[in-house]
Amino acid sequence: MKARVHISYKNGVLDPQGRAIGQTLGNLGFAGVGEVRQGKLIEIELAETDAGAARQAVEAMCQRLLANTVIENYSIELVD
Amino acid sequence: MKARVHISYKNGVLDPQGRAIGQTLGNLGFAGVGEVRQGKLIEIELAETDAGAARQAVEAMCQRLLANTVIENYSIELVD
Repeated sequence: MKARVHISYKNGVLDPQGRAIGQTLGNLGFAGVGEVRQGKLIEIELAETDAGAARQAVEAMCQRLLANTVIENYSIELVD
Repeated sequence: MKARVHISYKNGVLDPQGRAIGQTLGNLGFAGVGEVRQGKLIEIELAETDAGAARQAVEAMCQRLLANTVIENYSIELVD
């Protein structure tokens, strides 16, 4: 089973990298670009085959390592 | 309209950050963790309301700025 974890900054948290991308898109001539936010996408191969147990394990991984829950949100998606 | 762009390394491209995450998960006691890959998730607010035109614009943004197509794959998802 494979898990995809999306990690993004919470609303209101300054995202300088996203802002730099937005400005550069404007400089390149792309019009109508509003706010840009950059987050992380982590894909994890798991030996676990039970979806419930896999989700619980990935939830624990997010809490303990993958996300900084003070400033970041995460969402978990299981594939297969 | 909002676009979400997922950027990940192509298969076979070394991903040291993903490997470090995988090793750390093992060290923290998470069992059954296989390959871990880290990618980017870029969310872009667009003034464009036509889905076809929006996808074309984001495709051009990926080619010109967001992704390094030599070593990275990207996928575009339109929201709303």
